[in-house]
Amino acid sequence: MSVRQLDSADADFTQQLDGLLAWDLSTEGDVDQVVRKVISEVQAQGDAAILSLTEKFDYLTASTVLELEISQDEMRTAFERIDAEQRIALERAAQRIRDYHQHQVQSSWSFTDEFGNQLGQRVQPLERVGVYVPGGQASYPSSVLMTLIPAKVAGVEELIVTVPTPSGIRNDMVLAALFIAGADRAFTIGGAQAVAALAYGTETIPKVDKIVGPGGAFVAAAKRLVFGQVGIDLIAGPSEICVVADQTANAEWIVWDLFSQAEHDADAQAILVSADQDILDQVDKLITNLLPQLSRREIAGASLAARGALIKVADIDEALKVVNRIAPEHLELHIEDAETRMGSVKHAGAIFCGNYSGESFGDYVAGPSHVLPTFGTARFASPLGVYDFQKRSSVIQLTAEGAANLADIAVPLATSEGLEAHARAASLRAAQPKSEKP
Amino acid sequence: MSVRQLDSADADFTQQLDGLLAWDLSTEGDVDQVVRKVISEVQAQGDAAILSLTEKFDYLTASTVLELEISQDEMRTAFERIDAEQRIALERAAQRIRDYHQHQVQSSWSFTDEFGNQLGQRVQPLERVGVYVPGGQASYPSSVLMTLIPAKVAGVEELIVTVPTPSGIRNDMVLAALFIAGADRAFTIGGAQAVAALAYGTETIPKVDKIVGPGGAFVAAAKRLVFGQVGIDLIAGPSEICVVADQTANAEWIVWDLFSQAEHDADAQAILVSADQDILDQVDKLITNLLPQLSRREIAGASLAARGALIKVADIDEALKVVNRIAPEHLELHIEDAETRMGSVKHAGAIFCGNYSGESFGDYVAGPSHVLPTFGTARFASPLGVYDFQKRSSVIQLTAEGAANLADIAVPLATSEGLEAHARAASLRAAQPKSEKP
Repeated sequence: MSVRQLDSADADFTQQLDGLLAWDLSTEGDVDQVVRKVISEVQAQGDAAILSLTEKFDYLTASTVLELEISQDEMRTAFERIDAEQRIALERAAQRIRDYHQHQVQSSWSFTDEFGNQLGQRVQPLERVGVYVPGGQASYPSSVLMTLIPAKVAGVEELIVTVPTPSGIRNDMVLAALFIAGADRAFTIGGAQAVAALAYGTETIPKVDKIVGPGGAFVAAAKRLVFGQVGIDLIAGPSEICVVADQTANAEWIVWDLFSQAEHDADAQAILVSADQDILDQVDKLITNLLPQLSRREIAGASLAARGALIKVADIDEALKVVNRIAPEHLELHIEDAETRMGSVKHAGAIFCGNYSGESFGDYVAGPSHVLPTFGTARFASPLGVYDFQKRSSVIQLTAEGAANLADIAVPLATSEGLEAHARAASLRAAQPKSEKP
Repeated sequence: MSVRQLDSADADFTQQLDGLLAWDLSTEGDVDQVVRKVISEVQAQGDAAILSLTEKFDYLTASTVLELEISQDEMRTAFERIDAEQRIALERAAQRIRDYHQHQVQSSWSFTDEFGNQLGQRVQPLERVGVYVPGGQASYPSSVLMTLIPAKVAGVEELIVTVPTPSGIRNDMVLAALFIAGADRAFTIGGAQAVAALAYGTETIPKVDKIVGPGGAFVAAAKRLVFGQVGIDLIAGPSEICVVADQTANAEWIVWDLFSQAEHDADAQAILVSADQDILDQVDKLITNLLPQLSRREIAGASLAARGALIKVADIDEALKVVNRIAPEHLELHIEDAETRMGSVKHAGAIFCGNYSGESFGDYVAGPSHVLPTFGTARFASPLGVYDFQKRSSVIQLTAEGAANLADIAVPLATSEGLEAHARAASLRAAQPKSEKP
């Protein structure tokens, strides 16, 4: 096992770093064509298309879409059937996620200007949201909690979940998590057809206002195409971690954190940045020594070989510059004065501050959603949160005096834009400032 | 001039309403193909592609992209050259927009849980944002203020504007607005090539983190395709207004408000909903009588004929149900107790509450951005605001005691998901809860 080593002192370090981070997120034209066809089929044939596509792609046969629905009873039964320790862990994690997200709830506000005009914003939850839960091997109960609970806290009225179950195999932990998180309805469908069903509705599956949750290339392409018809969250890429360490770090903890990322997926990316050659060497050696212990060593090994890196920098300042260039999904700071140093971090999905703050805690239980901006999108995007499930309406409530005063500004601007009706609509109101009903 | 009349008492009212609202926002495959080609050209050839595409589509020839840049001096000169009344109006509007958006600024927060763990969220501005300002006839100085100022208030470090100037004709009011709003750089380019340049960067045009602002079909398709590479705001459709009126309304004001919408664009939509037949009749008659006075009567007439409607409902409750079905970009409430009734509005981009609150004031000067969710997207989307230019990072800072306690939850969940490294990363930290550096 050998992990790529980079040194910021190298003349071509920037190009090497760019090469390391390169990943093609764009939707290929051919994936797009397949997905356009699937979306058209679902729009035209509704339930019938869902049934045939689910049989074709998920090897799951049903005569009605209702047969593909997971009932509340089935969710409850799974919840009761799972191991007590796991049930308690799910419930405690759910409570902590709920507690954290309460802090994100936004409220309506307004103020009054000098003319008595009231200006503000109403904040309201979305009515109906679709959550795409990936299926098969990568179907994680934790992801159910991390996507549904922020929506619940926002006050979303109805949560419709789709979770593909290839060959009909359902995961009890996922069903129990759906029960705990409060899914209103859940269907065992997936792929572009699930996204299309949620975006346009079918006879059985309700049309939603927004679709969230990660998926593969076809799901990503479908979300991109239905965007505008419904809201979507980010297009997700492979998951990544960037660890910054100094001499106070614990090399073994770092290795398990890097493994945590790498074991997800051969495309996942795990990077260590340090000015301390000793830590870099220890981690390098421990990766080789510990990897054979890991049950998912093949996946983790492939990820580390293809996309992992140990980066030597001059000092912590330079390490944080590298971090801001990467804009990692997960950032761990295993350094002295981590809290102060965090002030220099501009771009990261989640910041794990200090040696004890392993990413694994964030994946399950710390509180913030583990659905985070990947692949440098932390430059402009945020973790999934309550704000993704609330929306705002501007409120403008003018007085007679206010309208008269604002007309002085609106009329010349409307006139300069050649929009005469705009000017008239404003000036007419200014002409009668006294009566409430002119 | 005859505007379509609908009655909610008709058996097929819902279908009629759906037909009225129907609009195809989807990107056609052929537009997509052209746009993919433009994007590839800009990625491959940078400035050279920008020059040839700008010559081809905008009839504007330059030998370098720097020649297409609008300098700060040019912006300032335009600002000084425009009419004093217009300059003062622009400045006063800018100040009101700034004041309103100050209320939207979000701050970082954190809290401490029962184990001493600190959890929170850091809120930071985006670094560099691209603003697409539509060009030619529909190039509005008000749109410059309404897009750039929220970004400035958020603290965005650098604002890069693209505004196509077909045949090289620049609009002084737009340049003055760029000066007032504080554009850092501006280029006279447009179309999919401008979006591609902002998303990927060229030798001269800096790559940005997010692209906002409305545009035509090619701009919309390009934004959809570069989404993920950069952030984008909504895909905009035609603008709409929905007015709800009762016997307290002023029919003439309503007509000018409907005209304000209709004069923008033949695809714009203006709808009046009322339970009062008298108001519906008055408005109908006034539309016919007043339309010939309007300089943009051809556009407004085409819009009203194709997409306008007067809808008769049973009462205000039903009117508001129709409103929530439409989820209009602009909603005006010309009714008694408008403020109380507003409580029943679930979906609207901006709510203009009471007779004096004409949409025109919102377009220029009230304060909220006039960039609003169109075509029913108010179901899930918000007005452009400071929140579009801020992003969040989750912060997780665990204590030794906290890690030990959270491991009790994380380990069983990680184990249930078959993610052994996750479990080890948590349990190793729990084993050494006493020392700060184990």
